[in-house]
Amino acid sequence: MPVFLNTRDADFEAGFQALLNAKREDAPDVDDTVAGIISEVRRRGDEAVIELTEKFDRLSLTPETIAFSEAEIDELCARVPAAEAAALELAAERIRAYHVRQMPDDAMWTDPDGATLGWRWTPVSAAGLYVPGGLASYPSSVLMNAVPAQVAGVERLVIACPTPGGEANPLVLYAARLAGVETVYRIGGAQAVAALAYGTQTIAPVDKITGPGNAFVAAAKRRVFGKVGIDMIAGPSEILVIADADNDPDFLALDLLSQAEHDASAQSILITTDAAFGAAVARAVDTRLQTLERAGIAGDSWRDNGAVITVQSLDEAAELSDRIAPEHLELCVENPEALSERIRHAGAIFLGQWTPEAIGDYIGGPNHVLPTARSARFSSGLSVLDFLKRTTLARMTPDALRTIGPAAETLAKSESLQAHGLSVRARLDKLNR
Amino acid sequence: MPVFLNTRDADFEAGFQALLNAKREDAPDVDDTVAGIISEVRRRGDEAVIELTEKFDRLSLTPETIAFSEAEIDELCARVPAAEAAALELAAERIRAYHVRQMPDDAMWTDPDGATLGWRWTPVSAAGLYVPGGLASYPSSVLMNAVPAQVAGVERLVIACPTPGGEANPLVLYAARLAGVETVYRIGGAQAVAALAYGTQTIAPVDKITGPGNAFVAAAKRRVFGKVGIDMIAGPSEILVIADADNDPDFLALDLLSQAEHDASAQSILITTDAAFGAAVARAVDTRLQTLERAGIAGDSWRDNGAVITVQSLDEAAELSDRIAPEHLELCVENPEALSERIRHAGAIFLGQWTPEAIGDYIGGPNHVLPTARSARFSSGLSVLDFLKRTTLARMTPDALRTIGPAAETLAKSESLQAHGLSVRARLDKLNR
Repeated sequence: MPVFLNTRDADFEAGFQALLNAKREDAPDVDDTVAGIISEVRRRGDEAVIELTEKFDRLSLTPETIAFSEAEIDELCARVPAAEAAALELAAERIRAYHVRQMPDDAMWTDPDGATLGWRWTPVSAAGLYVPGGLASYPSSVLMNAVPAQVAGVERLVIACPTPGGEANPLVLYAARLAGVETVYRIGGAQAVAALAYGTQTIAPVDKITGPGNAFVAAAKRRVFGKVGIDMIAGPSEILVIADADNDPDFLALDLLSQAEHDASAQSILITTDAAFGAAVARAVDTRLQTLERAGIAGDSWRDNGAVITVQSLDEAAELSDRIAPEHLELCVENPEALSERIRHAGAIFLGQWTPEAIGDYIGGPNHVLPTARSARFSSGLSVLDFLKRTTLARMTPDALRTIGPAAETLAKSESLQAHGLSVRARLDKLNR
Repeated sequence: MPVFLNTRDADFEAGFQALLNAKREDAPDVDDTVAGIISEVRRRGDEAVIELTEKFDRLSLTPETIAFSEAEIDELCARVPAAEAAALELAAERIRAYHVRQMPDDAMWTDPDGATLGWRWTPVSAAGLYVPGGLASYPSSVLMNAVPAQVAGVERLVIACPTPGGEANPLVLYAARLAGVETVYRIGGAQAVAALAYGTQTIAPVDKITGPGNAFVAAAKRRVFGKVGIDMIAGPSEILVIADADNDPDFLALDLLSQAEHDASAQSILITTDAAFGAAVARAVDTRLQTLERAGIAGDSWRDNGAVITVQSLDEAAELSDRIAPEHLELCVENPEALSERIRHAGAIFLGQWTPEAIGDYIGGPNHVLPTARSARFSSGLSVLDFLKRTTLARMTPDALRTIGPAAETLAKSESLQAHGLSVRARLDKLNR
């Protein structure tokens, strides 16, 4: 049974706090292991990567076979059924169309003091995308990571994807081609992250590493952060559905289950203005759980982390939602746009009953890599900005320097940074000569 | 003596690589200490913060005196000399004018398939700015951190600034007021970072922590990352000056020294097309070092980390610059705009001989919190974006779902995520009924 809460009840706040504070993931502490792996890869390069791949993925590689060859990729791509290929192409096209709009503008202007100021965006030169192997090897995630990088203009785009026992997912390779990925390395784990960050004899280092992974990958990303850029460290997936009674309970049950089926640690929450409707959705979840393929995982998630919260008003719903700061937020109410304007913290919002969250996972266009674990309070989903950086620009004329230079000199002196002040003063003196 | 290199020499590449790889900072490993401090603060709140402040800052606080009172701030602000106050006001105004232009636009559009898509930016609710105490307590950094937060619309803006022995810098308080800071806590170190991230009885937790600090502060920021957002972990400051022979050697000497005087680990590099001019700048540095207040620090930095590199062309200079990915880049050449367009990786560019880097530190307008240690390859200086996050929006109509829904269903099936597919299928079935 999920938790049932009602804001009318005296113990609501305690129950809601418990829900917020529940630690859903007990990530094993793998930091020492990961530190060892990284230092081995830095020291011995390919040799270490090959040894570790043999050990963890039961796969024998040589420097020549660390990357898939073009012929291998051709062969794997040819195995992708036409319907899947077409679906990936439509997804890539729609994700591209959305992300192209995110490209920020450069700017340059001259202010009233005569200072010319501005900024310019440039792409990172090389990015490495981590793609998990096995069951969690999602071609949709390849598109969600690689397309923004491609749109940003990243020159060299590579993937590291382990192939345990040598098994590769043809759709992953197909998605990689669609998104302009140059090379796919069949390596994974902390060793792949280390190889991407520091480089080996056959793997040139990248500047930015993104993509999901297990505890080893997450710990490795944390460790190489600073040497390279990384995206967020994602936790278990979450959905919050805010719904009035005018909805099909089965639709919402499926939406809740589509997070729950990811992982027993995933969390699905329904907030509704109608307690009876909440109960109907919970019944619909139970019904669907009787036949769902991943009923074990989804059932565990719903029972351990699920919640149905009854509120007195949509205002109250918006307030609770901001405290949860959900990764995915569905607004199944009469006027979802109006409600969405009252929401401040959410990764992605899905408006109205015809927008199931799964549309956003695959084909809607917005990115599905989103902030989890309440981090939507301070961070955003993946975007082209993750593959760009901004250089600021400034040019003073002699007049501009005369106008604003003395204040810089004053502040430099107040901070006891004499050379700073002198670098301005020497120029002013020459101008005044 | 700094290193002198010439791209003409056979051993240039080895020398340049050594310069790139030189580890300039030997940050002590304080991670265990910091982990202990954070757990104490989480467990005992104010009590731990007060004990640690007594221990590290020789200052006795009570829950009532952890924050400066309004009267104390009034009194400190009244001590700021008029010239400094005016300089801070001009700086705040110019920084604000620059950062206002960074505010990104929201977007919402309907695509040919009938899907309405977009995004909306919202500020983080609460931000905490760390301001070092003692010598490195820079009012300019208060403005550079707080003004972008204020422009972004952060509701609650607080500062943590240690006051060793109780000594506060009036200009820091004045700058805080100018930038709309609500509360200034007189605490520092890892205990301040922990208190901001997790909250105590008297300190409400924030969502984002920015600002420079020593090794303890940096380690604490790394540790609380995920619970809250953080800005970059800054290393020692750097400047690269690219200059032709048509410059005043003394100007450039002062610009190089204005980084060198920050810290013995700072790095100042001159790249010039004229070896004789390079030698003249080096002589000018030596001359200035004879009288500079911080000659010890600046001299150590210049001797240990400084470099003068002679190149055959500005193209070569741009290439080397991108490999260095400097925090600050001055282009003192005839056509600095043209050269700037060949640069891909730099935190901030200063164009022409009348734009000393110190202008950017204080008064230019662009932010002075910039990526160090080659991280300009993948990251940007501080901006309003650091205090905003983006929520993506999507709304399908029944027709849009009919058009793109089937592809989502196909991809969900290919990833063995049945509920994802069913959440689309159930809706399509109802629409087709």
